Amino acid sequence: MRVATSVSETRTFVKSARSNAKGVGLVPTMGAFHQGHLALMRRATSEQDVVVVSLFVNPTQFAPGEDYRGYPRNFEADARLAESEGVDLIFAPPPEEMYGEVDLTSVRVSKLTEPLCGTHREGHFDGVTTVCAKLFNIVQPDYAYFGEKDYQQLQVIRQMVADLKMPLSIVPVATVREEDGLALSSRNRYLNDEQRAAAPTLYRALQKGAQAVRQGASAIAAEGAVRTELDTQPLLVPQYVSALDPVTLTPPAADGPPMLLAAAAHLGKARLIDNILVEEV
Amino acid sequence: MRVATSVSETRTFVKSARSNAKGVGLVPTMGAFHQGHLALMRRATSEQDVVVVSLFVNPTQFAPGEDYRGYPRNFEADARLAESEGVDLIFAPPPEEMYGEVDLTSVRVSKLTEPLCGTHREGHFDGVTTVCAKLFNIVQPDYAYFGEKDYQQLQVIRQMVADLKMPLSIVPVATVREEDGLALSSRNRYLNDEQRAAAPTLYRALQKGAQAVRQGASAIAAEGAVRTELDTQPLLVPQYVSALDPVTLTPPAADGPPMLLAAAAHLGKARLIDNILVEEV
Repeated sequence: MRVATSVSETRTFVKSARSNAKGVGLVPTMGAFHQGHLALMRRATSEQDVVVVSLFVNPTQFAPGEDYRGYPRNFEADARLAESEGVDLIFAPPPEEMYGEVDLTSVRVSKLTEPLCGTHREGHFDGVTTVCAKLFNIVQPDYAYFGEKDYQQLQVIRQMVADLKMPLSIVPVATVREEDGLALSSRNRYLNDEQRAAAPTLYRALQKGAQAVRQGASAIAAEGAVRTELDTQPLLVPQYVSALDPVTLTPPAADGPPMLLAAAAHLGKARLIDNILVEEV
Repeated sequence: MRVATSVSETRTFVKSARSNAKGVGLVPTMGAFHQGHLALMRRATSEQDVVVVSLFVNPTQFAPGEDYRGYPRNFEADARLAESEGVDLIFAPPPEEMYGEVDLTSVRVSKLTEPLCGTHREGHFDGVTTVCAKLFNIVQPDYAYFGEKDYQQLQVIRQMVADLKMPLSIVPVATVREEDGLALSSRNRYLNDEQRAAAPTLYRALQKGAQAVRQGASAIAAEGAVRTELDTQPLLVPQYVSALDPVTLTPPAADGPPMLLAAAAHLGKARLIDNILVEEV
């Protein structure tokens, strides 16, 4: 496995690798790898001849007051894990390689970025779309892999790729969970034992909501079912609970599936998000 | 020469052409070709093995009340001219090929888009950067050619390409002028004989300003020299006259070169722009 920290090194590597190979896959990450990241890498290496993992804690996607400085960073451990998954290149640029001294351009997706996390994390999605546009232009992958845990991010990126006619396909990968249902997240390591024990309530609450949706519940009734379960766990402080149309991320026109159930909650110093997509039968 | 109206046709053509060739050049246009466009094509065909001309009157870069509907369109004549210049492919998409039914993504460059035309054409540069991002992603050129007549546009596109790490180079091409100095523009055909006779005053005024700059004039003094000359021609109604730093497009810190002199004026139903870049000796 190679490690590159510059745009030009990365381009040279991909160009030479591509000439002998059919598909180039990109897994964009902020590091602090867990099994969710490894599932993305595994999917990518199983499908593509060349796999690049980008590892960049992107300052512009943290809202003011968020955990940019404290975000977990462990390059050595991450590099070992990526290598063991058969990744060909880690692109780990310093911030100044991604953002010029004068950097004036942003990529913005409207509407889809307004509900859910968009309401609570100022500038977050503009930071995500702008950095992903840069990464896609640097690596020029044929496929890029994103986890379904960040459902809104996945939809926003898909929309950007479609609208801007970017020459790649987005591959969604299922959320990886602990045995008790907690979705894996680099931020789970902020939890102490008591908080960790409380954390699975978030997914359990979404499951209650999903059950209601499958039984024909309205969006408001489904949200109520989620909230009722969340309220059983006083350590979890809900930020939002939303039942939305999975494509437009607006309130659904009809009761029952398809419906996206998504929630965010603070738990100690962690902010956890999770979702369930209840598809039509 | 081939003509394509879809993204997929264009991609297939470029992909197959590229495999036998070194460089792909793109000349983005709105059609209504004049010698300025042909100079872009000539430069591109002399430097690249494959040249694509895009011909798309982009609705999103016209401000409310501007001439989108009336903008000159003549595909047959344009295709003949492009063919005679050795262009390999014209990409002439219908609007729905460029903008999906749900299209939510925009690319925006801040600061550089604020002065000059940015002050007077609401949303213009967001339309330009967004459509150019799409065109670059569709054609995936190694080089894209832009005229210096639209100096601000050129700088904005360069900034976007640098910031977003787009894998292409921007090639500026000198303004082509009539014998009397008038910069070629598709909108010159809006002028009647009397207006056409008055039009060269715009460039002559900029030349007076440039002379002042070379003699060490301040930005304000240079603007004054331009305005004094413009005032000799009552048919020309100035919209802006600005002397700016050529890189930042802000008021220059020092007197004398380097300085950009740029002006816009209404003349009948046409809006003309022109500029002179006074470089350091």
